[in-house]
Amino acid sequence: MNFIDGGVCAANGFLANGIHCGIRKNKQKKDLALIYSEKPASAAAVYTINAVKGAPLKVTKKHLQNGIAQAVICNSGNANTCNANGIEIAEEMSAITAKELNISSDDIVVASTGVIGQPLNIEPIAAGIPKLAKSLGKNSVGAAEAIMTTDTKIKEIAVEFKIGDKICKMGGIAKGSGMIHPDMATMLVFITTDCAISPNMLQKALSGDVNETFNMLSIDGDTSTNDMVTVLANGMAQNEEITEDGTAFNVFMKALNTLTVHLCRSIAADGEGATKMLECKVSNAETKETAKIVAKSVVCSSLLKAAMFGADANWGRVLCAIGYSKANVDVDKIDVAFKSKAGSILVCKNGAGIDFSEEVAKTVLSEEEIEILVDLNSGVEESTAWGCDLTYDYVRINGDYRT
Amino acid sequence: MNFIDGGVCAANGFLANGIHCGIRKNKQKKDLALIYSEKPASAAAVYTINAVKGAPLKVTKKHLQNGIAQAVICNSGNANTCNANGIEIAEEMSAITAKELNISSDDIVVASTGVIGQPLNIEPIAAGIPKLAKSLGKNSVGAAEAIMTTDTKIKEIAVEFKIGDKICKMGGIAKGSGMIHPDMATMLVFITTDCAISPNMLQKALSGDVNETFNMLSIDGDTSTNDMVTVLANGMAQNEEITEDGTAFNVFMKALNTLTVHLCRSIAADGEGATKMLECKVSNAETKETAKIVAKSVVCSSLLKAAMFGADANWGRVLCAIGYSKANVDVDKIDVAFKSKAGSILVCKNGAGIDFSEEVAKTVLSEEEIEILVDLNSGVEESTAWGCDLTYDYVRINGDYRT
Repeated sequence: MNFIDGGVCAANGFLANGIHCGIRKNKQKKDLALIYSEKPASAAAVYTINAVKGAPLKVTKKHLQNGIAQAVICNSGNANTCNANGIEIAEEMSAITAKELNISSDDIVVASTGVIGQPLNIEPIAAGIPKLAKSLGKNSVGAAEAIMTTDTKIKEIAVEFKIGDKICKMGGIAKGSGMIHPDMATMLVFITTDCAISPNMLQKALSGDVNETFNMLSIDGDTSTNDMVTVLANGMAQNEEITEDGTAFNVFMKALNTLTVHLCRSIAADGEGATKMLECKVSNAETKETAKIVAKSVVCSSLLKAAMFGADANWGRVLCAIGYSKANVDVDKIDVAFKSKAGSILVCKNGAGIDFSEEVAKTVLSEEEIEILVDLNSGVEESTAWGCDLTYDYVRINGDYRT
Repeated sequence: MNFIDGGVCAANGFLANGIHCGIRKNKQKKDLALIYSEKPASAAAVYTINAVKGAPLKVTKKHLQNGIAQAVICNSGNANTCNANGIEIAEEMSAITAKELNISSDDIVVASTGVIGQPLNIEPIAAGIPKLAKSLGKNSVGAAEAIMTTDTKIKEIAVEFKIGDKICKMGGIAKGSGMIHPDMATMLVFITTDCAISPNMLQKALSGDVNETFNMLSIDGDTSTNDMVTVLANGMAQNEEITEDGTAFNVFMKALNTLTVHLCRSIAADGEGATKMLECKVSNAETKETAKIVAKSVVCSSLLKAAMFGADANWGRVLCAIGYSKANVDVDKIDVAFKSKAGSILVCKNGAGIDFSEEVAKTVLSEEEIEILVDLNSGVEESTAWGCDLTYDYVRINGDYRT
């Protein structure tokens, strides 16, 4: 598995771009993204479990009923959620895009991200889509920029893998910085691949993967109304189509997982206000479920997140978060260590504190990527969750996001 | 029901005080509290559900098996949790207290609050208890001060009520500012009453009440390892002992609830770094459970808490938090309003935004106590939850709490 350049345009037959159409006031910020496949593609998606669902998600779900899509249109700056005419607007975005690309409106994935409950004006979008369609090229960065909200960095990645004797490529872009605590799905992630795979197997791959990746990510405990991950697979790598479990499907899953873990880490590192990426690795759990519950509870603890901001090796907060997670663990067997590129340090053994150098701990915790290693010493299962520290800037960003 | 002075010493036969014994470095801060009843009292308690439990809670649970207690000893500055010799230390605290008061060690409630996983030295406590016992008086404030950690205000309250022709009194003190997201129990709350009530009915009253009060309170989503609420009832009001359901029990429940709601509001208002107390009132829910889930989800949302800090009427975050709460609600029926002593303003009707004056909203949200009114328009049940805003100071306090 090799990392390659090109993001969502790395795979054969995919074009993309992003422009500023006028939803956002700041003209320097792109706000409309388009991804297009030269051929109709197998399509799969997972959506937020939030009962308040963005109108675009409802429209996309309808469009993907047949497992086929050919383009993605996405605006930022407005979530098109809790608006009386939201469905109408999302359908109109699809229709205009379909007309410009000369494809069926049912083959459009439509998405929106931004403030909830502000009326969305279709006019700048209607005027922007034709311009955007004409500008399509191998411009994944343009699309990645146009879906950003409070993100400070674009999130893009691509890999290359082999199915039989065919080289396949897969790439993705993501946005997400706040309101991130996915459950069954997450933020906005668009993945493209030229691998041939049936819609059913594509959905199976995606649904299985998100449980180990995006659903193990939390910035602030708030599950968004507009989270969605979609994969388009256009088959242009000319491999034998994957239609069942087996070696080829496993290779595909591995490629997908490489991509999604990378995007999870990128999103965690760029969490609103974050100065540090946290990765909690739970090992030797009795069950997979226990490992997952523990890992996620640790990265979600506001107290631990604030301690990590202060580079304070307050391991008691790790134990506390494990304790209230309701996971079935033997507290007296738990070891905790902190690790970063500056080194690693054991701070808790068998559920109780041990002597350790506060100075070394401070050095370890002053890096930008921190691993929190939790050994449950009770089995062989493991899991990883991602998050970030809680900082003054998270409060600043969210104290005046809307006004 | 009248509010009266005196806190935990308001009821007949209760004495209390607090001193600095030396657990905390700052000599201005009291760190050891004692509450004593002249007669053995019916005793009830509820404890944290955190699987990592403070040693003092385990010892207290054992001591309260017979439903009788006569004194409470509590230190701040160290949680005596995740320490290898924690149980031993807690038993020793009980034994020394019992000896000084000339009562049975089994009749002692022992509690600790502070940092988790730091060894606790018994010496300053052993030296402090005799001094503290000698200083006992009608000094509820001294005890309330000695149990504070990051609290900025003491939390104390008392009420007077009538059972038959007897005047009964009930008072309480509480500590709690961070690591607050109670589940079955909460923080440290000590309640005393001279009402005569059997241990069984006392436990029934307390267990029922906490589900509507402390369990509906969240500062930061972190359920502590040392949360506990205890009530001592020494019967010195000479009312006919309450031994079953009925009018007298209902009066007692009402008094208890008046006290606990007051303490919940005090704790929320003094949440770590808080500038505002949030009270989410959910009305017209189909079931009580739905109302509770919705109310708690709203006050727990980091994004809404930050918006309240910024006095930003970002009601989309209220809808979002309701949406991911997994409560069974009809989103299209939800109305949301903000209210404070400056006025009230409707911001969302039938799940969608309505035109409202941003200026008025800003004025409403600039007060220190904010009500978030959620009308589900689907039934007759209601519930209230309490929390606070998320501020820079929460991050500051928790970025360097331990070091």
